[in-house]
Amino acid sequence: MRKFARLIVASGETSGDLRYAAGFSAPDEFIWFDDNAGRKGVIMSALEFSRAVRSVRPGTEVLPEQKFGTTRQEIICSLAKELRIAGFVVPADFPLLLADQLRHNGIGIESTPDPFFPEREWKTPEEVEMVTLSQRAGEAGCRRAFAVLRETEIDSSRQLIWNKSVLTSEILRGEIDVEMVRLGMLPTGTICAGGVQGSQPHNQGSGVLYADSPIVMDIFPRSATTGYWGDLTRTVVRGKASDIVKRAYEAVFTARELSKTLIAIGANPAEIHRVAAEGMEKAGFRTGQGEKAAFGFFHGLGHGVGLDIHESPRLSPRNATPLRGGEVVTVEPGLYYPEWGGIRLEDLVYLSPDGKATCLTELEDFLEL
Amino acid sequence: MRKFARLIVASGETSGDLRYAAGFSAPDEFIWFDDNAGRKGVIMSALEFSRAVRSVRPGTEVLPEQKFGTTRQEIICSLAKELRIAGFVVPADFPLLLADQLRHNGIGIESTPDPFFPEREWKTPEEVEMVTLSQRAGEAGCRRAFAVLRETEIDSSRQLIWNKSVLTSEILRGEIDVEMVRLGMLPTGTICAGGVQGSQPHNQGSGVLYADSPIVMDIFPRSATTGYWGDLTRTVVRGKASDIVKRAYEAVFTARELSKTLIAIGANPAEIHRVAAEGMEKAGFRTGQGEKAAFGFFHGLGHGVGLDIHESPRLSPRNATPLRGGEVVTVEPGLYYPEWGGIRLEDLVYLSPDGKATCLTELEDFLEL
Repeated sequence: MRKFARLIVASGETSGDLRYAAGFSAPDEFIWFDDNAGRKGVIMSALEFSRAVRSVRPGTEVLPEQKFGTTRQEIICSLAKELRIAGFVVPADFPLLLADQLRHNGIGIESTPDPFFPEREWKTPEEVEMVTLSQRAGEAGCRRAFAVLRETEIDSSRQLIWNKSVLTSEILRGEIDVEMVRLGMLPTGTICAGGVQGSQPHNQGSGVLYADSPIVMDIFPRSATTGYWGDLTRTVVRGKASDIVKRAYEAVFTARELSKTLIAIGANPAEIHRVAAEGMEKAGFRTGQGEKAAFGFFHGLGHGVGLDIHESPRLSPRNATPLRGGEVVTVEPGLYYPEWGGIRLEDLVYLSPDGKATCLTELEDFLEL
Repeated sequence: MRKFARLIVASGETSGDLRYAAGFSAPDEFIWFDDNAGRKGVIMSALEFSRAVRSVRPGTEVLPEQKFGTTRQEIICSLAKELRIAGFVVPADFPLLLADQLRHNGIGIESTPDPFFPEREWKTPEEVEMVTLSQRAGEAGCRRAFAVLRETEIDSSRQLIWNKSVLTSEILRGEIDVEMVRLGMLPTGTICAGGVQGSQPHNQGSGVLYADSPIVMDIFPRSATTGYWGDLTRTVVRGKASDIVKRAYEAVFTARELSKTLIAIGANPAEIHRVAAEGMEKAGFRTGQGEKAAFGFFHGLGHGVGLDIHESPRLSPRNATPLRGGEVVTVEPGLYYPEWGGIRLEDLVYLSPDGKATCLTELEDFLEL
């Protein structure tokens, strides 16, 4: 009988799985294992050892790496011997070179499809609390942006003027991020995309912001202490929105609100996505692939949020696994047209194990300011 | 003859290699390839396609992923067919599950030890400029901390008081990070560790900061636009340093300054580390492993900085490859004792291809303020 343990080799900063398993993070790579027979542990360098002892999840041993060897291979081979196991089950993103080296040394390495910890999909009340705290910081950042935009004046070329200077995406992003940093968050790529830049959902935005044109603000802070993320999006216009922008905003808002009512135990994520997409299509907003860019609604409706910003479950056409209760998911329909830009409105919803859906976002909705 | 191409599958946010190869970043995973016969390209989702077209390194094709398939395996199998190759050479951290799936489909996948792009070690003038800009932001953050500390008062329990409140590591870190965010940086784990917390080199620091006790500030901003990092450390005491802290500071400072003079073409990094360690040992500061924690100087003297915060070359006992010119490395000796805390002083040095070593850090050095 070949006994396998579970193994993660990663940095806590980049691996949500490792942070979840170990209960803490470290900038450098470290090793976590669970022999599925009662022994769990982390193997730490001298640099991280004493910090790990204070921070690790209860029931987890902290072992000094010098006891096991100097290279990662040596350490893991010694560990396999100590645990008397034939090999390890590892996450999908386990580093290939190390796996090849271990296999070459006769250690079994079995890769598994995500999720490595399926239970991460269903949040504990403590996890919901941590996501909510990050979400509050994101809301504070967004309100700061609202305040800045309200303070702007509009010059003769329709540029926004703030503090006597032209307001750019970079400055607005800085104001949002500063607000969140003061609240202990790591801002990692706040989107402030004005005008046609907003038609590219992942365009962070750059350059001058203009009046009468939609500004997409997608804000996703990660707590520096807990590692849990928040995620929200609002789209606003300083001045007057055009008719098409107003209609798109209405269609997206309606899709978001409708989708939120469909989040329930037993609901099929693919079906929720379909309903949202259909609603926007019926409101006259077509989806397709243009010569240079896609247009319409061409991303998933939402995704889980926790120790990763994008995690299970996806609210997308590809996920037909019914919701079970315990999920925290974004609901973020959007419409994007290279001619005028984009509208995206994103809330965060917690579906409790007893079937109650709660919106974790507490933030105003409006188009013009 | 089996022809292999090079392949990276990663997110630009986490893979310096991918960002280096593609010339841009994207939050979601994407594929980069080079068939070593003139064809280079990235394969992008609809979500990222048009942004990639605008941002990609010249000479790189941008291909729509729907042309190749829906899953990563399908896409890469189709790519292999189109390039008429037998397989791919991939980086050490290539995701294992995907490699296993591709191998199962008859695609050769050959993992290679780091570095995947050895040339990343030798910076172009443009890269040095980008690192320097991030370094300037880090210096601004550190000066902000100096200013805050100078503004503090000391209460009867020797706590630092700022703005009528107790000054904590969290508040000081927030002030540093805010300064850097305004300059377009992503602060990802700024260390402000006071007193004995500073004896753990990676302890970020938490809680009240006290007078007369060293505060280690390790600041490593990453530019939100270029992806290049800066890295610097200063250790200061608000009030009066004890004799042992003064002596440790002198020993670390002397080691850093001496090490910087040893950075030269042909120099052996292991030897530079050894000289620095020996100097501090001779000044009376022993290194060893205590019951609970290591003490003395127990990390490498320095590391390369670029698109990764820790990259080649290491200035450590394990690296005997002579410097060649073009490297950007930190020089950061430190001394750590659980009884009183730590001292670390870190500068950044560029060794030009013509052999001139330039300190890229422009920041005051002092112990007490």
